[in-house]
Amino acid sequence: MKFKIALLAGDGIGPEVINEAVKVSDAIAKKFNHEIIWTPALTGACAIDAVGVPYPDETHEICMASDAVLFGAIGHPKYDNDPTAKVRPEQGLLLMRKKLGLFANVRPTFTFPSLIDNSPLKRERIEGTDLVFLRELTGGIYFGEKGRRDGGETAYDNCVYTRAEVQRLAKKGFELAMTRSKKLCCVDKANVLETSRLWRETVQAMEKDYPEVTVSYEFVDAVAMRLVQWPNTYDVLITENLFGDILTDEASVISGSMGLMPSASVGEHTSLYEPIHGSYPQATGLNIANPLATILSAAMMFEDAFGLKEEAEAIRNVVNKSLEQGIVTEDLVAKGAKAYKTSEVGDWLVANL
Amino acid sequence: MKFKIALLAGDGIGPEVINEAVKVSDAIAKKFNHEIIWTPALTGACAIDAVGVPYPDETHEICMASDAVLFGAIGHPKYDNDPTAKVRPEQGLLLMRKKLGLFANVRPTFTFPSLIDNSPLKRERIEGTDLVFLRELTGGIYFGEKGRRDGGETAYDNCVYTRAEVQRLAKKGFELAMTRSKKLCCVDKANVLETSRLWRETVQAMEKDYPEVTVSYEFVDAVAMRLVQWPNTYDVLITENLFGDILTDEASVISGSMGLMPSASVGEHTSLYEPIHGSYPQATGLNIANPLATILSAAMMFEDAFGLKEEAEAIRNVVNKSLEQGIVTEDLVAKGAKAYKTSEVGDWLVANL
Ligand SMILES: CC(C)[C@H](C(=O)O)[C@@H](O)C(=O)O
Ligand SMILES: CC(C)[C@H](C(=O)O)[C@@H](O)C(=O)O
Repeated sequence: MKFKIALLAGDGIGPEVINEAVKVSDAIAKKFNHEIIWTPALTGACAIDAVGVPYPDETHEICMASDAVLFGAIGHPKYDNDPTAKVRPEQGLLLMRKKLGLFANVRPTFTFPSLIDNSPLKRERIEGTDLVFLRELTGGIYFGEKGRRDGGETAYDNCVYTRAEVQRLAKKGFELAMTRSKKLCCVDKANVLETSRLWRETVQAMEKDYPEVTVSYEFVDAVAMRLVQWPNTYDVLITENLFGDILTDEASVISGSMGLMPSASVGEHTSLYEPIHGSYPQATGLNIANPLATILSAAMMFEDAFGLKEEAEAIRNVVNKSLEQGIVTEDLVAKGAKAYKTSEVGDWLVANL
Repeated sequence: MKFKIALLAGDGIGPEVINEAVKVSDAIAKKFNHEIIWTPALTGACAIDAVGVPYPDETHEICMASDAVLFGAIGHPKYDNDPTAKVRPEQGLLLMRKKLGLFANVRPTFTFPSLIDNSPLKRERIEGTDLVFLRELTGGIYFGEKGRRDGGETAYDNCVYTRAEVQRLAKKGFELAMTRSKKLCCVDKANVLETSRLWRETVQAMEKDYPEVTVSYEFVDAVAMRLVQWPNTYDVLITENLFGDILTDEASVISGSMGLMPSASVGEHTSLYEPIHGSYPQATGLNIANPLATILSAAMMFEDAFGLKEEAEAIRNVVNKSLEQGIVTEDLVAKGAKAYKTSEVGDWLVANL
């Protein structure tokens, strides 16, 4: 098979981790007789520096013409202290989500046996954790009308959802639950919000189409608690944009493997794969960043965007092997052991595929 | 001194835990020569059953005429499976907050050395945790215009804040920080929301009035992570209503002492004190519920509403003593030890004051 992949390395350590994901993807393609055509494009702070906007039209066209997008990270400290600055890397992210129609953010949280003791939570609380959040990504309060009135003294943000938006996301949730343990949790605040009541009634009406799936409904505050108490009692969770932003980040720290977690944003036109970690500016150019989350994102891409399960498994297996054998960057290294460089980890994975 | 306290026991275990808090408060009053006049009033499911509404006008008048309100818990399972029911206990809660102007919810999270191993988090992560959330409680998306359009196919909720609302809450935050370690964290989502930008600019403008306080600004998703990773790095946190709902619940489980956490809601007209736990319907009438969170809420009332620090300390000391000596209800009992009844714990505290 032949694939066109848009390569959005972004800022900070983005280019370094993307580099290793490309190496591993190319090696897999060679092994399984596929051809990948990579097309690099600018996004984030580096795009602002180069052309003045964080998500240039040219980048958008490259994404639209691709079978998938592989994304690094964006963000630069010079924008951090002024969230109200006119042009910001995050705007590029939001614009990209909207323009590509990336409506479902897929965020798995799982444990690696060898890393379980890195978790702030006790081992017995997290063993066996294997959950997936589906976060709605192009609606809600992120994209509703916002502004000021009364001469700037009053600010407002509108949260809006349509039934069709909820159905589209929930459908993905039901389908994913069918391929897993058939448990779906709808996270909302239906005791306070009208949008949540629309979410709940829409999901309730869909239950009859998936008679095998057991659906539970939980309030967002209760989920914020239970995620820390008993994360391994969850399987698939669906939720709206802002709740998803908060809860997926909370979930990412419980496994102790945050630096390794991949994600996908599934869209109408194409899908995007990216590590959940940020641009880690302090490490830029030092060849020390952990490339595994990006490499595991590439595995998700092979499986979900191209339907290539065997290729994805091959990547996951070699990643597990590297963890077991301690071929890891400094963030994961055992006391007294040798830390490998970003590129050395990639080389080792390619050699051991 | 002489105090009038409105007594809103509410539903489920509310009456039982309130009962013990009254016993302990009366004993303290006697010891320190104060007089308390308690006025019971209906709220929650029991008010719906009795008079058809969850926060009757008569209850409101009793609260308005009191120096403080001591609150148990509300909620009943018969309302749980239909969050869209026309009359619900939670509506009473929201109406009460609004009508009493309870704009600041004060939620401390701290550890008890003897209970630290109950936490889902590892000991070294939580030792020394002592933080306080100030959650805005009468504005934001909870109280903005909400509804449907397009024949019910589209739902909306408005989030609105005025500068004055932010100032009022932030002032409490700065003042509280001055009595503690002079560290204040403003939690927002200023990279996406206009209301958050108003919060941030308002707090920034107030910094000059509190030159000793070090203020940090963090995004809500980042705080959801750091609360699990390093809760003991926080001190005072201020935030808007919905973020506060999610984060205070998350924070409550990290200490391992959730069943013991008190809270206050400070208002324009009066202040309300309540345990953070719910109405725990399964335990109703069994005399097994832990009364300590309510008793510690009464301690907050003595200190903050009446300015009686010594009285508050006396309550906290005897509670600590009961924990050390294992005079605890079944939720806290050590393996093989005897569990005390709700009323026995109260009796022991009174006898040992
Ligand atoms: C950078 C920010 C706008 C973004 C969001 O809130 O969606 C980020 O937190 C994320 O989750 O991808
Ligand atoms: C019951 C509900 C309306 C309420 C809220 O969301 O404020 C509760 O979760 C709380 O935090 O007191």
